[in-house]
Amino acid sequence: MTSDSPMKSVNWQERYHAALIHTVRLRIRDLPGKLAETLAAIGSQGAPVGDIRMVGVDSQYRVRDVQIFFTGEDHRDKTLDALRAVDEIEIVQVCDDVLEIHRAGAIETRSRVPLETIMDLRMVYTPGVASVCELIADKPETAWDYTGICDRISIVTNGTAVLGLGDIGPLAALPVMEGKAAILARFVGVSADPVLVDSKDVDTIVDIVAKTALNYGAIQLEDIAAPACFEIEERLTELLDKPVFHDDQHGTATVVVAGLINALERTGRTASDVRAVVLGAGAAGLAIARFLVDFGVADVILCDSKGALYPDRSAGMNRWKEDVASITNKAGQRGDLAAAMRGANLFVGVSKPGLVTSDMVRSMEDQAIVFALANPVSEIPTDEALAAGAAIALDGRGMNNALAYPGIFRGALDARAARITQEMKLAAARALAAAAPGNDLLPEMLDPSVHRRVADAVSEAWRRRDDA
Amino acid sequence: MTSDSPMKSVNWQERYHAALIHTVRLRIRDLPGKLAETLAAIGSQGAPVGDIRMVGVDSQYRVRDVQIFFTGEDHRDKTLDALRAVDEIEIVQVCDDVLEIHRAGAIETRSRVPLETIMDLRMVYTPGVASVCELIADKPETAWDYTGICDRISIVTNGTAVLGLGDIGPLAALPVMEGKAAILARFVGVSADPVLVDSKDVDTIVDIVAKTALNYGAIQLEDIAAPACFEIEERLTELLDKPVFHDDQHGTATVVVAGLINALERTGRTASDVRAVVLGAGAAGLAIARFLVDFGVADVILCDSKGALYPDRSAGMNRWKEDVASITNKAGQRGDLAAAMRGANLFVGVSKPGLVTSDMVRSMEDQAIVFALANPVSEIPTDEALAAGAAIALDGRGMNNALAYPGIFRGALDARAARITQEMKLAAARALAAAAPGNDLLPEMLDPSVHRRVADAVSEAWRRRDDA
Repeated sequence: MTSDSPMKSVNWQERYHAALIHTVRLRIRDLPGKLAETLAAIGSQGAPVGDIRMVGVDSQYRVRDVQIFFTGEDHRDKTLDALRAVDEIEIVQVCDDVLEIHRAGAIETRSRVPLETIMDLRMVYTPGVASVCELIADKPETAWDYTGICDRISIVTNGTAVLGLGDIGPLAALPVMEGKAAILARFVGVSADPVLVDSKDVDTIVDIVAKTALNYGAIQLEDIAAPACFEIEERLTELLDKPVFHDDQHGTATVVVAGLINALERTGRTASDVRAVVLGAGAAGLAIARFLVDFGVADVILCDSKGALYPDRSAGMNRWKEDVASITNKAGQRGDLAAAMRGANLFVGVSKPGLVTSDMVRSMEDQAIVFALANPVSEIPTDEALAAGAAIALDGRGMNNALAYPGIFRGALDARAARITQEMKLAAARALAAAAPGNDLLPEMLDPSVHRRVADAVSEAWRRRDDA
Repeated sequence: MTSDSPMKSVNWQERYHAALIHTVRLRIRDLPGKLAETLAAIGSQGAPVGDIRMVGVDSQYRVRDVQIFFTGEDHRDKTLDALRAVDEIEIVQVCDDVLEIHRAGAIETRSRVPLETIMDLRMVYTPGVASVCELIADKPETAWDYTGICDRISIVTNGTAVLGLGDIGPLAALPVMEGKAAILARFVGVSADPVLVDSKDVDTIVDIVAKTALNYGAIQLEDIAAPACFEIEERLTELLDKPVFHDDQHGTATVVVAGLINALERTGRTASDVRAVVLGAGAAGLAIARFLVDFGVADVILCDSKGALYPDRSAGMNRWKEDVASITNKAGQRGDLAAAMRGANLFVGVSKPGLVTSDMVRSMEDQAIVFALANPVSEIPTDEALAAGAAIALDGRGMNNALAYPGIFRGALDARAARITQEMKLAAARALAAAAPGNDLLPEMLDPSVHRRVADAVSEAWRRRDDA
């Protein structure tokens, strides 16, 4: 959602990011004003309330499930204490909604074929299946038609850079992979298998993914820390004749550029007018900087914790940072973030909570665009950025990379693409920008037609590629 | 189905194993006797007919889809020529039913969670999912509850021993893996991910499976040639604290013993009365021989193409054959298959079509039991075995290992078993035997209650294990 969506005024996430979403079952005496008293007790602790459902009733009491958002366990315990202090309210049960929705996992495998009769079995399984195997053995390209490869990707992680949590390992990363797979299944009919690689060694990861790639039409790399992720993607792209796409890099960059297209439109600028600052030189930051250059912005300064990247900087560099330094920061500026932001038109943050001050935003050019995407709490709250003069401010809630990757994978599979080209990512960005309703910068993620439009644009870009 | 099922008299599979199952769309003049003429033309080529559906009608013609089974392309072409020779019949279309049922694959991934609202998304995906990740990072054992591991297995193959087709490679084996996954999904709600490992190197396969095992509650090895399959299973069982089960070995052996339990009942024998011959010393044969010994049969002679295995045989041996030789063939018999079968009570064939003669069956003891399971055409047609005096004869159609593995995996996952014990396999065999209706040796694969009974028996066997 954009900065002027109805949720904006609530804006509880920056302060109370929803570490816990619980449903509290309350038995409340059926008296006038009692529900208001209940909600007041919750509100007294600053805890936002979600759904309220009536689940039971008797002559004297009503039982209601109240969904409450907490910043953490302390906040929850204090809020429950406040509820207990209200007369004639009883806490029947507390249920962790997030855990419950993930119970037994977010995805499952289903049969697409009938298995009602012996004849079905004999066609799906032995002996009939042998003729399909023989056909594929003879003509390997027919596997695309007669197996699920045409709709199937792997989501590969080693769990070294998961959300804002960092290196939590592949097993703890699994709920994210399942969540992504659920989104792919629901929005674009792509079947995604999480692949958890228990290794931090680039050679090992490349080898495992390459030797098990036959089963997939494309490979999504996910939550693998930089710089390993760059080398893994490079080498797999070279080894395999199928798309390899690191979502943390290119999904994020695609959504940023989509938002930028509409933000430029609204602020009356063109890409060549824009001087951009990108904060965070990990997977996302490097990819965003590259994409912005490719998109034609006048200049980009990429900053990390040591300040601006410039060509001959020596501290905290690697070959991917050097590559990006060589195509950005034309004036060779060497200052810190505050210096870089002075006079800039666009800020994109993919770093850590709270790194950007109102003064920094105030130092930007008029009609500044601020995309503060740090997860789960942004570099600067969007309302503060707007108060400091930004024309447009978005955080990670409004700029989710789940807007891009479903359509990109669907489109790549539809076109049977051998890789993801820059043109395909740009086509995805343009399609997303065009699908945004009204004054919004980006479209609604839950609208399946958005993903279809992205997919079609991506397929088309592959079919029109130079070497087609 | 058992030898006395209604299908038995058709028995076309031994001679015309259904290499091709096609639906032929015919436009037939609407005259009395014309459909009979059509079917007579098909019958003249010996091609069995399946479903006949009327799909169109006009004033002069009827359009019918006729499902026809062919032994191969020549047989199909001759049958179609015979149809063309009938007056006033037109072949509108010929459709390969097996290919069509496999089009785009037999399985798909689905979301198990709602994704209707932004709140759903925020719980399934970021930011809510972070709390699930943190819980698992803190307590890895909770991954069983809050991810799909509890219902998910991998089906690992390198495609070196696929059905009767041999070493066709992992890609061409994929339809079999998808078929197995479809069966697991439909019958027992297990989500199976095919894993195609593009290697014949045991170290590589073990390494890949071990390093990507976190995502699965159990590992099914499938269609991997002997002896590599034995070492892979052994080493993975040692490395992993989860079940590793090579279906071609143990699934087959479990179903054989299930059938044997009822066959002994029907022939009034006990295991200790039985002298068995097993033909084929690959994955299935070795596992069957071991299981029979464990089940208490008096003696087993395992034969391969060089005749009986005995302890100090040197030709064509490996350490797994030596192991089995050391616990079988108590008299150290050194002859060929015909010698071994003389006076035996039980023959189990997991070898090649046509290797057993009527004379060999005639040389067995009275009330002989013949399980001739070679795929797709058995060692001896069941009707010939019965004519040669066998009391019971079954082929691979009636003794499908898909009877065993769904319940075994479901039961192992239900009990959160760390491995598959011999007791669990025996429990599965006994449950299958007990579930057979009436006079049948084995139950109906399409009956979900059968798989539930097997699963419950397998869980129970794990919970009652000695070291529990």
